[in-house]
Amino acid sequence: MGSKRPAAGEPETAAGNGLLDRRALLAAGAFLGAAGAISSRPVFGAAELKVEPWMTEPGAPFSGYGQPSRYEAKVVRTFASAPGTTGTGASRTPLQRLNGTITPNGLHFERHHSGIPEIDPDAHRLLIHGLVKRPLVFTLEALARYPTETRIAFIECGGNTGALYQKEPAQLDLQASHGLLSCAEWTGVRLALLLDEAGVEAQAQWLVAEGADAASMSRSVPMKAGEEALVALYQNGERVRPSNGYPLRLVLPGYEGNMNVKWLRRIKATASPTMTKDETSKYTILLSNGKSLQFVFPIETKSVITQPSPGLNLRGLGFYEISGLAWSGYGKITRVDVSADGGKSWTAAALQEPVLPKALTRFRVPWRWEGGPAVLQSRATDSSGQVQPTRAALIAERGARTIYHFNGITSWAVDEHGQVRHVYA
Amino acid sequence: MGSKRPAAGEPETAAGNGLLDRRALLAAGAFLGAAGAISSRPVFGAAELKVEPWMTEPGAPFSGYGQPSRYEAKVVRTFASAPGTTGTGASRTPLQRLNGTITPNGLHFERHHSGIPEIDPDAHRLLIHGLVKRPLVFTLEALARYPTETRIAFIECGGNTGALYQKEPAQLDLQASHGLLSCAEWTGVRLALLLDEAGVEAQAQWLVAEGADAASMSRSVPMKAGEEALVALYQNGERVRPSNGYPLRLVLPGYEGNMNVKWLRRIKATASPTMTKDETSKYTILLSNGKSLQFVFPIETKSVITQPSPGLNLRGLGFYEISGLAWSGYGKITRVDVSADGGKSWTAAALQEPVLPKALTRFRVPWRWEGGPAVLQSRATDSSGQVQPTRAALIAERGARTIYHFNGITSWAVDEHGQVRHVYA
Repeated sequence: MGSKRPAAGEPETAAGNGLLDRRALLAAGAFLGAAGAISSRPVFGAAELKVEPWMTEPGAPFSGYGQPSRYEAKVVRTFASAPGTTGTGASRTPLQRLNGTITPNGLHFERHHSGIPEIDPDAHRLLIHGLVKRPLVFTLEALARYPTETRIAFIECGGNTGALYQKEPAQLDLQASHGLLSCAEWTGVRLALLLDEAGVEAQAQWLVAEGADAASMSRSVPMKAGEEALVALYQNGERVRPSNGYPLRLVLPGYEGNMNVKWLRRIKATASPTMTKDETSKYTILLSNGKSLQFVFPIETKSVITQPSPGLNLRGLGFYEISGLAWSGYGKITRVDVSADGGKSWTAAALQEPVLPKALTRFRVPWRWEGGPAVLQSRATDSSGQVQPTRAALIAERGARTIYHFNGITSWAVDEHGQVRHVYA
Repeated sequence: MGSKRPAAGEPETAAGNGLLDRRALLAAGAFLGAAGAISSRPVFGAAELKVEPWMTEPGAPFSGYGQPSRYEAKVVRTFASAPGTTGTGASRTPLQRLNGTITPNGLHFERHHSGIPEIDPDAHRLLIHGLVKRPLVFTLEALARYPTETRIAFIECGGNTGALYQKEPAQLDLQASHGLLSCAEWTGVRLALLLDEAGVEAQAQWLVAEGADAASMSRSVPMKAGEEALVALYQNGERVRPSNGYPLRLVLPGYEGNMNVKWLRRIKATASPTMTKDETSKYTILLSNGKSLQFVFPIETKSVITQPSPGLNLRGLGFYEISGLAWSGYGKITRVDVSADGGKSWTAAALQEPVLPKALTRFRVPWRWEGGPAVLQSRATDSSGQVQPTRAALIAERGARTIYHFNGITSWAVDEHGQVRHVYA
């Protein structure tokens, strides 16, 4: 294995301010000479390792359901709820502490409108009615007789990154700015199959999906969206959790988060949108001219650098991996470009295979930080041809009077001390 | 959507005893007429749904790290430990209760030789030494500077399904017979990159990898296996859990479980295998003639039907989905055949995309149970051309004096009451 990388020499830079080619084979020992805190580079000429206490006594016993290390106690969702409530609000995924693309179920973001109902699965029913030939009520046991499908899909709240419409760059960490975004492997029954069982009438062009929470959270969904929709029973292998819709969640890959109705109780086929409180009082995009865009469903092409990001400061000069996530409600990510000089020059990042449609895609590019200021940006392109716009271009088109569907390029400034903060650039 | 499936008529059978083509578009309403318990089919002419208590009061508050529903309290690992210990033994994944391909971290199987060490990540070190030019010691912070990779891979204990070598078919559920098998998305640094940093000498053909548990569990690994190996920091997005090797686990995709050394502390480059206690006292395959096969590393081509399986009995006649998992340490699953008549006739199951090498692959085929006895089997084929053997063929070749690397076809008998049990067929 030692023969694959050059024994000396430096990889050529691929873009300004130290960005290296994504395929760069770093010289053996390239990391060894890095300056900075001693703990941030390997140590030569190893002395004997210390024998730690956990090596000399039997460890902890087995458990039925495992938990993270107590040393990771800071890797949790942060949350805020409306005054006078404990469950109306949102919790955010600590994306800056994660790697890969799957979000573990305990950290999947939440947006609840009246807390988390504790549903008895034996009592739960799914009603399909409205413009159908045969209204049907399903128990979970009845649903279990149907064919299932699995797909990995992201869910992002339509209000995620809403703070980036603000005039001044909010000094938030990634969790606070981008944490209403998660990705899981969902398994369930195709909604189209259940609609076929009920026999949808020709004039039914819409559905309305309703949850069994006390808010009866409900959203209108165009019938064509049902093609890809799952009535999900499983998330990352196990039953969907209460905080994500136990026992049933509607999963509409690529569509804004709250259309993926949790605690799914009722689907009604309708001729036109129902204009529920959740799609009229919220989730519309107020334009500069005072009009609103309603029913903007798919999440636009988007990306963000997760490492480094605000709060994750650089420790010493030399090589770093710039890593981030890209996603689109319109298809697959086909390309992510990264800049270290605020958009003056770009290089294509490596995309982690398999790249799946409407799923989070991890991108990575090697970077050699030489101690000067830098502005890190990422720009995603998807299979529909959409390119993530600059913040300025997005606001020129839509204005800044909304909090929804921000997908502009995000900029992290690195100063000479390695501190990372959010800027507009 | 209503126009896609035939309004009446039955799909043609694809193999004996009611197996349907994997692409069968079941007639609309096909499930509605199914006989059996009322709860196992949808109900027509829906009356109003009952208003349940959880719809009339605010639900539970947010939490930093979520947990499964209390109604799923039975979906846990089962475990057993050696006399006088609480942590020497194994815990098993409840595969019969899961769907999709990812195993949630709390349910990943475990095999420990002296319990779960509680490692302080700031104190933990990884030493790379032996036949290398530059012995190196890595802190976690130093590792965090290196490029990372993500891949989905199964891990299976070499002793999983050992009970199937027994003379009589053990009456166990799937968790007890097959539960030393899990699959996760792993992210970490390529081992090859770290070995390059240390500069492996030409004569180093093997490695020995050692854990920081009190058993110092260690295994020899051929150097070429390092090509695909990851020093994993993340499992399904979050840091690897203590029960799976926090803070570092060696992941060797496709290789028998205990080579994926948990709590990775030391990698030594050697000229030949080290013959550690864990590869001489265990994990060798005793043949009929008294000799042993040693260093049989990759898991052979294998599959099992997870639903139905023993304990998950059928409730009523009609359509079911036969669903299961297939995997191989030699590459991708290319085909899974399913039989409902004990291997007399077969049909190809649908494979859930994306099919990834050395990862669990979910297969599914529709089945119409007409109430008679059936014997359900699955047979996997992989990209190396290997076909899962019958139990008889496997034992004819290897004998039945071992508990390791059983990969024979598994048979579930269904009787006229819908009860499912393990048989040899």
